[in-house]
Amino acid sequence: MLTYSFAQIGKKPLYEALYDFIREDIRTGAIKAGERLPSRRALSAQLGVSAITVEAAYGQLIAEGYCHAIPKRGVFASSLGAAAPLRPATPPVTSEAPPPLQYRYDFATGNVRPEDFPFDTWRRLMRRIQNEQAADLLSPVPAHGAPVLRDAIAAHLGAFRGLSVPAENIVIGAGSEQLTMLLPALLGRDRTYCVEDPGYGRIRRAYEASGATCVACPLDGAGIAPETLRGAGGDILHISPAHHFPTGRIMPISRRYELLAWAAEREGRYIVEDDYDSELRMTGRMIPTLMSIDAAGRVLYMNTFSKTLTPTIRVSYLVLPDTLAARFRERLGFLSSTVSSFEQYTLAAFIAEGYLEKHINRMRSKYRRRRESLLAVLKSEPLRGKLEIQERGAGLHFLLHFHTEKSDEALTAALAAAGIRMTPLSAYYAQGGEEAEHTFVMNYTGLDPALLTEELATRLASCLQVL
Amino acid sequence: MLTYSFAQIGKKPLYEALYDFIREDIRTGAIKAGERLPSRRALSAQLGVSAITVEAAYGQLIAEGYCHAIPKRGVFASSLGAAAPLRPATPPVTSEAPPPLQYRYDFATGNVRPEDFPFDTWRRLMRRIQNEQAADLLSPVPAHGAPVLRDAIAAHLGAFRGLSVPAENIVIGAGSEQLTMLLPALLGRDRTYCVEDPGYGRIRRAYEASGATCVACPLDGAGIAPETLRGAGGDILHISPAHHFPTGRIMPISRRYELLAWAAEREGRYIVEDDYDSELRMTGRMIPTLMSIDAAGRVLYMNTFSKTLTPTIRVSYLVLPDTLAARFRERLGFLSSTVSSFEQYTLAAFIAEGYLEKHINRMRSKYRRRRESLLAVLKSEPLRGKLEIQERGAGLHFLLHFHTEKSDEALTAALAAAGIRMTPLSAYYAQGGEEAEHTFVMNYTGLDPALLTEELATRLASCLQVL
Repeated sequence: MLTYSFAQIGKKPLYEALYDFIREDIRTGAIKAGERLPSRRALSAQLGVSAITVEAAYGQLIAEGYCHAIPKRGVFASSLGAAAPLRPATPPVTSEAPPPLQYRYDFATGNVRPEDFPFDTWRRLMRRIQNEQAADLLSPVPAHGAPVLRDAIAAHLGAFRGLSVPAENIVIGAGSEQLTMLLPALLGRDRTYCVEDPGYGRIRRAYEASGATCVACPLDGAGIAPETLRGAGGDILHISPAHHFPTGRIMPISRRYELLAWAAEREGRYIVEDDYDSELRMTGRMIPTLMSIDAAGRVLYMNTFSKTLTPTIRVSYLVLPDTLAARFRERLGFLSSTVSSFEQYTLAAFIAEGYLEKHINRMRSKYRRRRESLLAVLKSEPLRGKLEIQERGAGLHFLLHFHTEKSDEALTAALAAAGIRMTPLSAYYAQGGEEAEHTFVMNYTGLDPALLTEELATRLASCLQVL
Repeated sequence: MLTYSFAQIGKKPLYEALYDFIREDIRTGAIKAGERLPSRRALSAQLGVSAITVEAAYGQLIAEGYCHAIPKRGVFASSLGAAAPLRPATPPVTSEAPPPLQYRYDFATGNVRPEDFPFDTWRRLMRRIQNEQAADLLSPVPAHGAPVLRDAIAAHLGAFRGLSVPAENIVIGAGSEQLTMLLPALLGRDRTYCVEDPGYGRIRRAYEASGATCVACPLDGAGIAPETLRGAGGDILHISPAHHFPTGRIMPISRRYELLAWAAEREGRYIVEDDYDSELRMTGRMIPTLMSIDAAGRVLYMNTFSKTLTPTIRVSYLVLPDTLAARFRERLGFLSSTVSSFEQYTLAAFIAEGYLEKHINRMRSKYRRRRESLLAVLKSEPLRGKLEIQERGAGLHFLLHFHTEKSDEALTAALAAAGIRMTPLSAYYAQGGEEAEHTFVMNYTGLDPALLTEELATRLASCLQVL
């Protein structure tokens, strides 16, 4: 006979308490497999609870398979098979990683400062869209993104990058790494993917994590040479011709044609043109895209809003040549878009209503001033003769070479001790990189302009002194 | 001698027009490789433009490699190598896919109606966060998501699902398919992934697209049997034990223990518990998770906000056992989070401040009423004896079986002609599915309650009549 006390159950509903009691008895064997449970009426009378309570508890036990009902005969305890022990109630605590050190001067990341993000406009557009386009926001979005955002990007590329592309060939994704990880599904997982060495390590790791073979290819003065690609057995080449990261080099037109010829030479060869910061080139005109001179349909254009807006918004896109756009629909069209429609619609309005262009122009001036302040500090008296600035591409970072004998490790540590965070160029090499010693990659977008003073020069000079 | 007319250049800056002219001449061979260009001063005098204009045009041509400067000798046209023809200015137009047909009654998708999304609260939280946490929104987010959202989810799982998990083991991702596509990088690409047949086809396709071998395993009455897994050589099992899609079955406790034993039996075996709609169970208590009774650390728990909020917001998450959480940090910690921090922070506040729980409770009542209205229509006079309702799991969909001899294809077409969109159960089978004939999967969350009237019964009856 089942006897349970409901005195200690607290706020739990009666039926849940009863369910817990019986479940525990079945689990421990107090009620054996095959044993018939009391009828609903009998148990209700026995425990002084309503028949509805018993009914609900039995219903749940049956739903989860602790019991089963046999019509006209009643409810029976089921066999649980090889019963596994319960999981411990308190899981082992894994502590969070310690918070990163705070540096007074951080040249290692390209963050965006709060005053540099267009919060007012963004908030206003977001509110308007939620008010006026509620049904659109809740409607399914195709795998390659909301039409309204693809249209806005196509128009932006036409006006800003001289690229005339059909909106249907654009694929929106949650960041360049996520799009990169999709590429092997589109271009073939058995292909060899070549990236630049030095280069942006996450792209190489993204290809590797997606199961593809990835080779880091050394650069000559113009970029990766076709001979190097042939030697590596490369099929797909991922490059940043407008502004190589981290060296800042611009790929000359002759090498561009050579690489296009390499791609056209054999079926299945493609070039991914990663145009990550071209819109924020600080001097001269923007560098025309490789895609704009590709007659053979072998260039995939990739860009991001990480530099023009903020990396934390997670929106990047690909522009595919026609054949690959068709293949994307066929092979990957089943996927859900990886970007929230709330952000796709807001960003579409931000671009289409001209705010992006205004914002880019404003940020170009702001960043140019920030760069000039920093360069002035670096050229000031305490540092004279101690360093050299290499700013070939004039984008959102440049290289700083110290005239010193000390190792990059010692330099990085001395700088960190002085509250200055810098990443050595050598850290961006997959192999070698000895020739890159004593050179650091200088991101300056996230710097507080108020800190670009003599103090920084003094700190840098004393670091170099001590060494 | 270079002679260019600036009469037709429109609003283009002079230096850009000059750059375009010279570039075109180099490209067509009018200026030969190696040829020396006029000095800045000479060309400026010759064309009647300022020396600064010439300087800017030459600078851009040099940056892009059309020319090169030799110190003290001047600027020379470069060799472009194997010049590829220019890309046609107007790319072939790829037309957008035709807009999907509008159905009066759409049972094929689980959309969310505009009045069912908590826009007011969402908008308010989003505004507050942009006002008060601007710096947080622009700070880098770890690969597995913003700590504030992981904390909120961990607390929600504790309160709502009886799951006590460390926030550090949670991985936020841009939808369940995106997280599924990451799994082979975490669990091994050489493993065999088993999914349910019938099942949610996108999960199988996501595994395949990520390069893994995926086997669709037939179900017995309780789900996939361990013998079936052994026969398929399965290593990883992806299931929805709380509410199988599309049959609605709940996996009985005995089969749960059997599968946990199967997983513990050999190194590298794991179970992905896809708990996609458990929070919206319409009757009884929620079904306890498989993870909560897993003593061996072989269960990965997966859930989504697609059902509780909207699929278009693209936020899902995994809870990893400790060993896999450590492996994620090591192998995939380099990735950027795939969800915008704007949405991560808003969702975190939405959960932590109790709005999610309230919203779920409200939606449970609303959906329950919607389901009851629909069931009342289906049980009404014109349809008596013509169909049978199978609603085992009582979640956000149920099955509708028609007593008819006609094929699913003919039925689907007749329904579509009557403005009714339904997906046959047989469409969810990878193999076979003959026994599923005449049964349809009924999603009802997106239905307009005002349309759940006699008219629907009449339309359905006349479809069945005609057949």
